Amino acid sequence: MKVVEVLHMNGGNGDVSYANNSLVQRKVILMTKPITEEAISDLYCSLLPETLCIADLGCSSGANTFLVVSELVKVVEKERKKHKLQSPEFYFRFNDLPGNDFNVIFQSLGEFEQDLRNQTGEELGPCFFSGVPGSFYTRLFPSKSLHFVHSSYSLMWLSQVPNLIEKNKGNIYMSSTSPPSVIKAYYKQYGKDFTNFLKYRSEELMKGGKMVLTFLGRENEDPSSKECCYIWELLSMALNELVVEGLIEEEKLDAFNIPQYTPSPAEVKYIVEKENSFTINRLEATRIHWNASNDHINGGYNVSRCMRAVAEPLLVSQFGPKLMDLVFQKYEKIIINATVSLTKKK
Amino acid sequence: MKVVEVLHMNGGNGDVSYANNSLVQRKVILMTKPITEEAISDLYCSLLPETLCIADLGCSSGANTFLVVSELVKVVEKERKKHKLQSPEFYFRFNDLPGNDFNVIFQSLGEFEQDLRNQTGEELGPCFFSGVPGSFYTRLFPSKSLHFVHSSYSLMWLSQVPNLIEKNKGNIYMSSTSPPSVIKAYYKQYGKDFTNFLKYRSEELMKGGKMVLTFLGRENEDPSSKECCYIWELLSMALNELVVEGLIEEEKLDAFNIPQYTPSPAEVKYIVEKENSFTINRLEATRIHWNASNDHINGGYNVSRCMRAVAEPLLVSQFGPKLMDLVFQKYEKIIINATVSLTKKK
Repeated sequence: MKVVEVLHMNGGNGDVSYANNSLVQRKVILMTKPITEEAISDLYCSLLPETLCIADLGCSSGANTFLVVSELVKVVEKERKKHKLQSPEFYFRFNDLPGNDFNVIFQSLGEFEQDLRNQTGEELGPCFFSGVPGSFYTRLFPSKSLHFVHSSYSLMWLSQVPNLIEKNKGNIYMSSTSPPSVIKAYYKQYGKDFTNFLKYRSEELMKGGKMVLTFLGRENEDPSSKECCYIWELLSMALNELVVEGLIEEEKLDAFNIPQYTPSPAEVKYIVEKENSFTINRLEATRIHWNASNDHINGGYNVSRCMRAVAEPLLVSQFGPKLMDLVFQKYEKIIINATVSLTKKK
Repeated sequence: MKVVEVLHMNGGNGDVSYANNSLVQRKVILMTKPITEEAISDLYCSLLPETLCIADLGCSSGANTFLVVSELVKVVEKERKKHKLQSPEFYFRFNDLPGNDFNVIFQSLGEFEQDLRNQTGEELGPCFFSGVPGSFYTRLFPSKSLHFVHSSYSLMWLSQVPNLIEKNKGNIYMSSTSPPSVIKAYYKQYGKDFTNFLKYRSEELMKGGKMVLTFLGRENEDPSSKECCYIWELLSMALNELVVEGLIEEEKLDAFNIPQYTPSPAEVKYIVEKENSFTINRLEATRIHWNASNDHINGGYNVSRCMRAVAEPLLVSQFGPKLMDLVFQKYEKIIINATVSLTKKK
């Protein structure tokens, strides 16, 4: 066990925090800030590297891509000033799937770096950036080339839809009406994927390297509990309506399943300990509540839009592009009520 | 002097080899192959790194982006088999300006790597790829992080149009009618840029690291000789015709200059020795002749198309997008004759 790890989970609880929504992500980054700060500052002070190599896995290509970089740089700058050291070189590697828009990231880097230097002062060491396309369920970086791995709201996505031996009839995700074999297949796929993730990262991290991973999880030990499946059940309802209306074939819906798994803290702990490359420093589950109406008069619209960004590519490949507007119109009508009831729980 | 360098130049001689033309580039890569092979095989055998870090500067995003990678991998595989060693990890960094289409490169990587493994066999070590946006006249990589730098047909581009104290009237590049101060300003800018390039790369390369640089050069010691300016003089003629026709303002043409310099071997040698970070292993000037009619019935069209890819962004920012078709129609008519006379020299 050579590498120390910090894990951080956020409870799902019907929130739509895994979508690419700036407000929610910003909130999450602020919430996980103390944990990330502690990890990067411990790392920097114990290794004092000349070049600090940091990877962001599942970086996406929005405003949040750079938010993490800023936070990490500021913490290190604070520490190195405290210890009267020279600013190190920073080497940031942005990873996401090959379909991610890396061009957008690359074209914003100049302005971002200038802003960062304006905020931190001219003493800031050189910053280098690179884009690394590929699935984080494969090797991405050369051996022992990273000090710090960060990942936010990506690790609940599986590498593939689980192989199901029974149909998950009427559902598109685990649900209380799913056969036990479906629940089992989902957990099996998650265990395999997360184990691979830990193995590959342990090969890429240097001795003493750290990770802070934030992902959608669940508090309930039952993976088919409403807490984590609610949002998919609503989408499933919209799709089932289209089956009733004869616009989607029933077999196509039965064969469609979402490749996501939101683990419980106990499951995460079990897999990390079994894989045996990492020590858990912190493992926290936090509930975040998103009042969707905060940033839009029609709250449901935003939730639907966020879901759409995540789910549409999956849906299109199964049902074709034509029905998408209809699906999300239906979803929007259903979810408005859902969002309101969720925000009341706070 | 810690780093050994291999420099390779191709004589310009009116050829259009610096444009993004697959046929020409392929030809050039085949020609420079022995030099590149010698350099990478010397490097690999002397350092035997576990991870071989290679940067391609000015990688573009066409078929040629991967051609260099294949060649380098094959040479190393041959050497390591000869010495009965395990295949190393390969780490390729693709660099170009932030406006380059990195998305296209990233989306082709999977297929490329599969092809490469089919060709080399399953023993090939893991290959990692990343994209690095930025000008190579700045620092791009962390200190001592590279073994090998490769650059093909990019280094004749200057970081900016030289600051001219006199107008370069009627010309868009150095020409026999340019004032001496213009020629001087061009050389000064080239000296500054190439010196910076050497300095930054020497910081990024590890001890014993190597570079193979191929760029358009000239045999003649006179930088305004027809040999290297011909292609731009033809474009200049097309633009001047548009001035006569009243479609382009004369002042705008006078203020437009191409940021390119094609050095002589003596100039390259002088700058490398003065900068003092590198030893020259080989410095060769080769003439390449391109018979444009080889791959298109109307030879002039291809030359014009290649020129257009290179020159259009520069022209658009000065003259606006509207006139471009007209400029290149004129250019095409003029260049057909030029190409024919050039191909006769062979």
